[in-house]
Amino acid sequence: MNLACTSVRQEIDTIAPYVPGRSIDEIRERYGLDQIIKMASNENPLGVSPLVQESIRRHADMVFRYPREGNPRLAAALATFHKVSPENIVIGNGSDEIIDLLIRLRVTPGKDNIVCCTPCFSIYPLQASICGTEIRREPLNVDFSFNFEALRAKVDQNTRLVFITTPDNPSGYCPSRDALLAFARSLPEQTLLVVDEAYMDFADDELSASLLTSGVYPENTAFLRTFSKSFGLAGLRLGYGILPKELAQYFWRVRLPFSVNILAEEAGLAALADKSFREATLRTVREGRTFLTKELSATGCTVYPSAANFLMFAPPAGSLQAVPLFEKLLQHGIIIRPLKSYGLEHLLRVSIGTHDENRLFLKALRDCIK
Amino acid sequence: MNLACTSVRQEIDTIAPYVPGRSIDEIRERYGLDQIIKMASNENPLGVSPLVQESIRRHADMVFRYPREGNPRLAAALATFHKVSPENIVIGNGSDEIIDLLIRLRVTPGKDNIVCCTPCFSIYPLQASICGTEIRREPLNVDFSFNFEALRAKVDQNTRLVFITTPDNPSGYCPSRDALLAFARSLPEQTLLVVDEAYMDFADDELSASLLTSGVYPENTAFLRTFSKSFGLAGLRLGYGILPKELAQYFWRVRLPFSVNILAEEAGLAALADKSFREATLRTVREGRTFLTKELSATGCTVYPSAANFLMFAPPAGSLQAVPLFEKLLQHGIIIRPLKSYGLEHLLRVSIGTHDENRLFLKALRDCIK
Repeated sequence: MNLACTSVRQEIDTIAPYVPGRSIDEIRERYGLDQIIKMASNENPLGVSPLVQESIRRHADMVFRYPREGNPRLAAALATFHKVSPENIVIGNGSDEIIDLLIRLRVTPGKDNIVCCTPCFSIYPLQASICGTEIRREPLNVDFSFNFEALRAKVDQNTRLVFITTPDNPSGYCPSRDALLAFARSLPEQTLLVVDEAYMDFADDELSASLLTSGVYPENTAFLRTFSKSFGLAGLRLGYGILPKELAQYFWRVRLPFSVNILAEEAGLAALADKSFREATLRTVREGRTFLTKELSATGCTVYPSAANFLMFAPPAGSLQAVPLFEKLLQHGIIIRPLKSYGLEHLLRVSIGTHDENRLFLKALRDCIK
Repeated sequence: MNLACTSVRQEIDTIAPYVPGRSIDEIRERYGLDQIIKMASNENPLGVSPLVQESIRRHADMVFRYPREGNPRLAAALATFHKVSPENIVIGNGSDEIIDLLIRLRVTPGKDNIVCCTPCFSIYPLQASICGTEIRREPLNVDFSFNFEALRAKVDQNTRLVFITTPDNPSGYCPSRDALLAFARSLPEQTLLVVDEAYMDFADDELSASLLTSGVYPENTAFLRTFSKSFGLAGLRLGYGILPKELAQYFWRVRLPFSVNILAEEAGLAALADKSFREATLRTVREGRTFLTKELSATGCTVYPSAANFLMFAPPAGSLQAVPLFEKLLQHGIIIRPLKSYGLEHLLRVSIGTHDENRLFLKALRDCIK
């Protein structure tokens, strides 16, 4: 029974929550296993940079202080890293907070709408639902590429945001830079294109794939990036965006003043400084992606081309289906990601691990499907 | 010039941002000082618990993992600590996130309203403004006590939330438990009373002052608490609430899945375990509060009675006024808090420090006002 004092807004009552990857503790508890390999959440296969660990340990005695508002040191470092002005940089408690605030800043419920793909990263439609915003979703093509023409047709004079993830999650698909640029230029002037490049640095050739890195894009384009993947800071919650300056100012004006924790800022600075750790991460992911693509294909799986740190695949025809295969891998101590929450019950996603993890995953998979 | 793609919702355009306390780095840079004493943000005078520091250092190599959703271990520990069910517990990226979500969960813009005092903790009206919610504010009495009768008169059938801070910020005023209980019972059934007890454990007798600790309160009452003050984790961002179960379920359903970082959860568990550090903190604050009240009064300052870890005071009549006194203290390397952003330009707030910090503050203050 719901009390009157606990009732919620109508929009809230119908929201289905985010479905995260399973955690190691959870699976260890359930199956009583010693060794668990988690390849479910696109975390860094090499763990945490030694420089980051040292920075966290050095600042452990500082956590009684509030963070400095606006994260000016980190914003300056990110501006240098991306060759943009510090005034373009926004920083959030994960990209999730930035996505939420972009919607809250720009979209008037009952009047404006947002456009995204289906399936897509679920936080876009989730946060829009919480805001009570109209969400227009365009299905991906059957090969998981984007139908830019149909997406454009969904946009009208009340579309304030379009969200595109590239490389895309969960497929790993990466459109050409030119196709994305043409789409950005086709949008009406009041529509901001938000290009979520969370996985972009894993592409074989970032410069040719990234609109942000190219430096050539229209004024109505914003970018999201994250420290959760190649920088190895998922647990500290640190995302950032490159926004038009005017919008970045509004962002800082309404962001909760201390939403980025003090260790995240220090760790982010250390992660930017540790170039060799990041290069080793990118090498490990690119080599592992090639290796896993080849070996998964050899077992009869259908593997989708990916520019990210994960692969989407279908089990071989006639073997275990995706969900039973996922469950059976759990019993072998391997956690990957079923894609039911994306509406893709026949597919699975595996994050690229270390070479040893990749081999153990393949061995378990072969055992499960034979 | 604002581009069409960077324009924001009408409500956003008029919001004045949160004004934080000044940071040590900022003041060190500006005045070229070596030693700075910060008594501006109600942080823990004893710093960080040794058990917490050890836990942070031990988990520094885990930050590449996403946190486990729902923070179940911390929720269980908090339920034990407060003698409530884990189903009543919600946890956020600071209490700020919980305040924001309570408004977003319960208040329909254009229809519902919230009620709070003026002045009050600025995050309540700020987040309500971002939501485009009607805010009804009742002035405090001249002695900074609450006018419960007038507050009650502001509440109507569309009031979904009433925010009360006790002990109050910035005054330190703490109403009697009975007065607050009577107010809670007087509210209509659809109105949730949110009692923010961020500073409650600094009261001389928490049991007699806290509605939460008493265990006796009506179903339409929720409580906020924080790890930022007596637990010394301000920089890690960890707040929590005790909510009616149905509302707590909705909270977890819409909270960003990983908004509490992985080190905050570990540090929170360690902070709850380190009882002696917390007792030392409470003793330091209570003794320092008595000492500072007496000594500030002796200099001719008007000191307001406080149950919190700070004191609000007015400079002696005929000496420097509040803002020039604040500025002059900065030049002595002492940061306290001017209250202009609360609309109290004639008053100052000082956080209770260690005994040495309290004495250095008093010495500088005497130099400034003589």
